[in-house]
Amino acid sequence: MNIKIIFYFLGWVLNIEALLMLLPCAVSLIYGDGQLYAFLIVMAVCAVIGWLTTHKRPENTVFFAKEGFVAVALIWIVLSFFGALPFCISSEIPSMVDAMFETISGFTTTGASILNNVEGLSPSMLMWRSFTHWVGGMGVLVFILAILPLAGGGYAMHIMRAESPGPSVGKLAPKVKDTAKILYMIYLGMTLAEMIFLLLGGMPLFDSLATSFGTAGTGGFGIKNNSIAFYDTYYLQGVVTVFMILFGVNFNVYYLLLMRRFKDAFSCEEARTYLAIILCSVLLITFNIRGAFGSLFAAFHHAAFQVGSIITTTGFSTVDFDTWPQLSKTILVGLMFVGACAGSTGGGMKVSRILIWLKSVKSELSALIHPRSVKVLKLENKALDSGVMRSVNNYFIAYFFIFAASVLIVSLDNFDFTTTFTAVAATFNNIGPGLAGVGPMCNFSQLSVLSKLVLMFDMLAGRLEIFPMLILFSPSTWRKGW
Amino acid sequence: MNIKIIFYFLGWVLNIEALLMLLPCAVSLIYGDGQLYAFLIVMAVCAVIGWLTTHKRPENTVFFAKEGFVAVALIWIVLSFFGALPFCISSEIPSMVDAMFETISGFTTTGASILNNVEGLSPSMLMWRSFTHWVGGMGVLVFILAILPLAGGGYAMHIMRAESPGPSVGKLAPKVKDTAKILYMIYLGMTLAEMIFLLLGGMPLFDSLATSFGTAGTGGFGIKNNSIAFYDTYYLQGVVTVFMILFGVNFNVYYLLLMRRFKDAFSCEEARTYLAIILCSVLLITFNIRGAFGSLFAAFHHAAFQVGSIITTTGFSTVDFDTWPQLSKTILVGLMFVGACAGSTGGGMKVSRILIWLKSVKSELSALIHPRSVKVLKLENKALDSGVMRSVNNYFIAYFFIFAASVLIVSLDNFDFTTTFTAVAATFNNIGPGLAGVGPMCNFSQLSVLSKLVLMFDMLAGRLEIFPMLILFSPSTWRKGW
Repeated sequence: MNIKIIFYFLGWVLNIEALLMLLPCAVSLIYGDGQLYAFLIVMAVCAVIGWLTTHKRPENTVFFAKEGFVAVALIWIVLSFFGALPFCISSEIPSMVDAMFETISGFTTTGASILNNVEGLSPSMLMWRSFTHWVGGMGVLVFILAILPLAGGGYAMHIMRAESPGPSVGKLAPKVKDTAKILYMIYLGMTLAEMIFLLLGGMPLFDSLATSFGTAGTGGFGIKNNSIAFYDTYYLQGVVTVFMILFGVNFNVYYLLLMRRFKDAFSCEEARTYLAIILCSVLLITFNIRGAFGSLFAAFHHAAFQVGSIITTTGFSTVDFDTWPQLSKTILVGLMFVGACAGSTGGGMKVSRILIWLKSVKSELSALIHPRSVKVLKLENKALDSGVMRSVNNYFIAYFFIFAASVLIVSLDNFDFTTTFTAVAATFNNIGPGLAGVGPMCNFSQLSVLSKLVLMFDMLAGRLEIFPMLILFSPSTWRKGW
Repeated sequence: MNIKIIFYFLGWVLNIEALLMLLPCAVSLIYGDGQLYAFLIVMAVCAVIGWLTTHKRPENTVFFAKEGFVAVALIWIVLSFFGALPFCISSEIPSMVDAMFETISGFTTTGASILNNVEGLSPSMLMWRSFTHWVGGMGVLVFILAILPLAGGGYAMHIMRAESPGPSVGKLAPKVKDTAKILYMIYLGMTLAEMIFLLLGGMPLFDSLATSFGTAGTGGFGIKNNSIAFYDTYYLQGVVTVFMILFGVNFNVYYLLLMRRFKDAFSCEEARTYLAIILCSVLLITFNIRGAFGSLFAAFHHAAFQVGSIITTTGFSTVDFDTWPQLSKTILVGLMFVGACAGSTGGGMKVSRILIWLKSVKSELSALIHPRSVKVLKLENKALDSGVMRSVNNYFIAYFFIFAASVLIVSLDNFDFTTTFTAVAATFNNIGPGLAGVGPMCNFSQLSVLSKLVLMFDMLAGRLEIFPMLILFSPSTWRKGW
């Protein structure tokens, strides 16, 4: 294990984190909320550690897949630790465990909160909290790859692969650096577009910025206690609905659109399936809840918002869907697992994996019925090799074992089954709210420290797609002689 | 598709079913419960149809895996249909849907009931209901393979593979026919042993027979409204506990013991894991519920009974575990999915599959950490070939898709999440009772017809391990030209 190069990356991440905190500092200055010092202390610490670890480039630049996984897992934990410090230092979230939970929830774009009263936070803390979503959405290491002149070494692809969601990483440009740049440009452009649409609808600048961050990262932290229900117009909620769904689409599609390759963009199998699932779910739920709202349009509006929020694993809410009929709730719980497209900022299992699994079962059936026919599994018109299939299958298995173990530990808290089950489902899939005791109108503060630690692990494992976290904690990784 | 040979097997199954009904006929004569006519009518119908379809052997004996799957799935449905008729004709279960539900639940050894008052059934009906467990446990087609002189054709292994639980079928003897005979001899011997132990404890003959049938098939139909809680002695409940656990062990182990190959028997990886899981679960639950019973021994006793009942997917109960703390309930729900050993009469996913999956994830991690090392996956010291791995993975995927679809449809009934989720878990894994509205002290009668149909499909899919049912209902199976 090349520890030095991992520390080198860690140092760069701390440098970047210090820079990122300039945004809440500015907010603190504008609003005069008196929390500037909390950010300045942390920035100073980050900058010092960052300078110490990055002022000299390590000579040994050996970097394998293993180093990529460990670096990504470790960096996300350290990033969250320092990101949590301002909440602690300012005493706005006095418990370090709670502050870590909130920050991991932010960076992993989960949006699960331990706060009873979000509106009690000062503006700079609120902005930092929402900003973590934006930073975590596209990935902080992808950002570093995009901006830093770190030539040489095979690290780029290993890091990109470990941090990006989805079964395989699509390279938009021949160089990883350029791919990372393109992704961040699209990300920034769409975030600005949403902000402008929200401002046009009369939302204040602060709220527009925070809401856009939460949508872009498909995170879900709101700045109001009742989330997006606060902005009670069809226009504003509609804008958020549309952008949530847009941020759940594979970013390859936007790249193809930018390149004017419209035909390729519109034939993307994953994005089409994703939109089809959304359409079916919205229609079913609209029909199921038609009696609960004044008009069919209102039912459709709220169904679309909640479906968009859950499938993209954002976690915003406009109504308390825990009071909806069981069919609607089951659909929403199902969508929690489906998740958004690979190569988007959304979480969950990803539509492309679901597609691969369905095709795999179909081909198994076909092989049993017609043993002599041989069919090649394809996704997006490309054959799936056995390596991808094996990795996708092992992801599925690891997913369910971690899920079961987490439910087991969280059930020590003795909450009801729905709370326990959906608490894990909502954090592991990076959504935010679950049902019952962790429903959209409740929060995670009541859980024990042990459960919070487990759910923090789940949020990170969900965001980084399991293997980096497992490899970080696997004894075999740290054994000598390899 | 060779329909004629499938009908030929179907005919034999009806002949056998007519013979099997001699047992409830005898019970009816002894107790004079006046239900003899119901069985006689069905026996006559079965015998006539059976004679018509079997008096001439089909000339075309082509029989592929496809025919095996379709035959098994179709035969189990037909078997259940005729098995349900006596309940209907006698009006003891007036609704045909309910009678079918109860009978499928019997043959698939699920043990989920729609009866509010089990004790209201007449003795012959009770005995028939329990007897279905015994017949379904080892498989009716395996029975036919064991006793009928159907020489030639490659059907035997195809049928055995389609009907027997587990990822691969172990042949105990060179001939399938001999393997089937050995299995049934062990099965019969152990059933008789349990009966004798129960009689020694003072249980009436009728009750001993019915309880042994329920245990042997790991079915779980009781003949008392409060299941095994009725026999309120540590001895009787202890005997049932031990035999439930014994019937969940891979029958290969008993064959090896009979052959005096003790070393091979005790080194069976699956059986050891199965017993280890039971031990850990019992200890955890005992500790968790220690306050709820008068003594630690009582807590251990009830923990062991419930764990044995759930992991083997029997479904007997001595207490209402729905009132236990959430940790114990979560462990029990987890065990519902684990299930017993392959090659036993138990249901669920089977311990060997869980072992294969865990090894698969471990080898994936190892491959990511040390890309140049190549490891071969082994179970019971035999290398797992890619065919088994693919099939096991596709089973896992198909399992969860069917599970999700079932939960979705059952949630139309608008019960709470726990009821909906555990109703599917308890039927798909062939256990019987779930939690909340379908808990050990409740039953399935309140569900809608649609939900009952879905759960019937799940019970059959669970018992036959998914693929036969999927193939039966797959349009591609029935397409011409293959």
